[in-house]
Amino acid sequence: MIAEIITIGTEITTGSTLNTHSKYISSKLLDIGIETYYHTSVDDHRERVKNIMNIALQRSDIIITTGGLGPTDDDMTKEVIAESLNLKLVRDKDMEQSIEGIFNRLDKSMPSNNIKQAFKLEGSEFLNNSIGTAPGIFLSKDNKKIIMLPGPPNEMELMFNNEVIPRIHEDSIIIKKSINLIGIGESQLEMDIKDLINSEPSVMIATFAKEGETEIKIIGKGNNEELIKDKVYNIINILQNRFHKYIYGFDNIPIEVVVFNILRERKLKIGFCESCTSGLISSRFGRIPGVSEVFDRAIVSYSNNSKIEELSVESSTLEEFGAVSEKTAIEMANGLRIKSNLDITLSVTGIAGPNGATENKPIGLVYLGISSKEKTISIKCNFSGNRETIQNKTTTRAFAELRNFLLNKSLT
Amino acid sequence: MIAEIITIGTEITTGSTLNTHSKYISSKLLDIGIETYYHTSVDDHRERVKNIMNIALQRSDIIITTGGLGPTDDDMTKEVIAESLNLKLVRDKDMEQSIEGIFNRLDKSMPSNNIKQAFKLEGSEFLNNSIGTAPGIFLSKDNKKIIMLPGPPNEMELMFNNEVIPRIHEDSIIIKKSINLIGIGESQLEMDIKDLINSEPSVMIATFAKEGETEIKIIGKGNNEELIKDKVYNIINILQNRFHKYIYGFDNIPIEVVVFNILRERKLKIGFCESCTSGLISSRFGRIPGVSEVFDRAIVSYSNNSKIEELSVESSTLEEFGAVSEKTAIEMANGLRIKSNLDITLSVTGIAGPNGATENKPIGLVYLGISSKEKTISIKCNFSGNRETIQNKTTTRAFAELRNFLLNKSLT
Repeated sequence: MIAEIITIGTEITTGSTLNTHSKYISSKLLDIGIETYYHTSVDDHRERVKNIMNIALQRSDIIITTGGLGPTDDDMTKEVIAESLNLKLVRDKDMEQSIEGIFNRLDKSMPSNNIKQAFKLEGSEFLNNSIGTAPGIFLSKDNKKIIMLPGPPNEMELMFNNEVIPRIHEDSIIIKKSINLIGIGESQLEMDIKDLINSEPSVMIATFAKEGETEIKIIGKGNNEELIKDKVYNIINILQNRFHKYIYGFDNIPIEVVVFNILRERKLKIGFCESCTSGLISSRFGRIPGVSEVFDRAIVSYSNNSKIEELSVESSTLEEFGAVSEKTAIEMANGLRIKSNLDITLSVTGIAGPNGATENKPIGLVYLGISSKEKTISIKCNFSGNRETIQNKTTTRAFAELRNFLLNKSLT
Repeated sequence: MIAEIITIGTEITTGSTLNTHSKYISSKLLDIGIETYYHTSVDDHRERVKNIMNIALQRSDIIITTGGLGPTDDDMTKEVIAESLNLKLVRDKDMEQSIEGIFNRLDKSMPSNNIKQAFKLEGSEFLNNSIGTAPGIFLSKDNKKIIMLPGPPNEMELMFNNEVIPRIHEDSIIIKKSINLIGIGESQLEMDIKDLINSEPSVMIATFAKEGETEIKIIGKGNNEELIKDKVYNIINILQNRFHKYIYGFDNIPIEVVVFNILRERKLKIGFCESCTSGLISSRFGRIPGVSEVFDRAIVSYSNNSKIEELSVESSTLEEFGAVSEKTAIEMANGLRIKSNLDITLSVTGIAGPNGATENKPIGLVYLGISSKEKTISIKCNFSGNRETIQNKTTTRAFAELRNFLLNKSLT
């Protein structure tokens, strides 16, 4: 069963609205073992929508459209699909009453063009819309399933989960797992797992890259749950042995949440002092609900003065070694920890560019410092990319090093 | 000239990654008067990519692909398009050296599969990638323009703006202007400009919404430059009169850059003290190259202790009025300004949720404080949304209020 998602709307093709429907529906389909091969978006133009539909009918088994079910002239999804499939549109008395009922409850009379919404393709069934006036349509014909959903995200998502999933659920069993890694690039990773990619026909292995991190997704599919589980966990074991140095977690729990969970469990309080990341580490940590349980404070010490005043960095250190140096990173982390009596502090100082590089200190050179009562360490990193990328990669790496420090591991 | 955007990647069709490229490119194309009718995404599968490409060649004049230019076996955009067009791939010695150079500078040896990136289609030219190893490709053939861009967003965007736009710019004259607003929602804005939308056939007006801000785009197109300019500026005048209270700038210069420019011009030093935004204001400010000229430091005072120790907030204030209060916001801003001898400081304290709300202090309640030697003010805001949205909207509003403070205006 191959799925295709078609989002209809000029607001999407002109770049006015971001298409989030295709991602939402695809990932929900994957969860029930249905693969999506195509996403298509097209503007509100009758002929083009029809062409798109005809192409989809040739190559996909499940076709899910969003948009174009409203009452206005722009809304023509049902009409166009009816033409493509050579089916009549038939008026449904029950639905007509139901839509009228919605308007009655709002003490309004139904505008005449809303009657459009009471029509469905012959042989199809309506999908209930519990929060809007536009019902969806489900049609099963010639081994194809064609599903039309409304455009507003909350109506679409509710209808998809409640009305569509039960109608397209396959019987096969799906076991899936994600492995999350930091410190190894996607191309290196792919080379290192090449032997596994097609080793099991019933298990799909794919790699994904984000800034500064990578993901391996393993999806097993079949009828014998024990057998699939065995196969998936066998592959996970091999991957764990191969990449244990880089693995920080599973199933896409962000690295900062992994750190948060360790700190919370051990009842430790943390603080950050940031120079080149300028608050990015704090703000990513601050996205976590309830972070105040472990997060005390951060100092963004951009100027040399603020490093001296807020973090007790020695001015002689700045003069002799510079702000971007191992010694400064260590003094920053120690300074904040001692001043604020925290359990653990992390510092970062580096050159994010585009200016500030010298002969010995290129753009992308970053020093991290981590300080606890027991020990203080520093880590030297070199990142590639522009200012934003270097800041992002530094932040991800900082959390990875914090995790390793807390678990007593080394990434390098 | 009809454009189609093809995003290639299994991570998109499986719903692992949100496709933001199609929106980005479409809206940039619209800026130069090129309309996009189709967005297509397909997984990393040779035959399917080829089919997609063949369909696009039949219906579109400008075809822009993203993704599949990396070094791994999954990456096959060039290979597939070469097949579709019956063109050879040729190895480019200069590009090979250039890619090797990137690895040399990082003190790494080039993995053997990166050699793929030095191949281009015969008759095509490379598009320079200044921040990654994958160059783009530009091919003009049989009245079609085919453009292949890398998948990482920052590489793609830079290449699109610097290398692609100059190559596809049309001859007709385009006059465009964006008006940027904070403090008015998109639906309100749309209602208030309805009368202007179709008032001039040669001028297009569209609204766009981002978190906490809106944009009105005005695009005039034609052959007589003076005439189009008149029409566009006539509409801009009307819009300025209508929305002057909300307009903070033009042509999508981010609000934080507007603030940075004012501070730099006046040689003022700024500092932030953040509670509920947890470093987001500092990190957005810290994205600006050269920001050290005006940015001295920030304190993320998450705990009550840190507000007292770092910012000299009175513990009686916290007890009597609470951390989220006008008085705390003012004491924070004053405390940082006096302690660090800065010209201007901004503070923020609020409830980002999902926890922490009380009967009188709902989620989304935020106080901003701004302090200078001359005066100190506070602003009370109420934002809707989840934790992340509230943090984002607070940050945008903070910069807008800073601009108004510096220009002596009021947003409310």
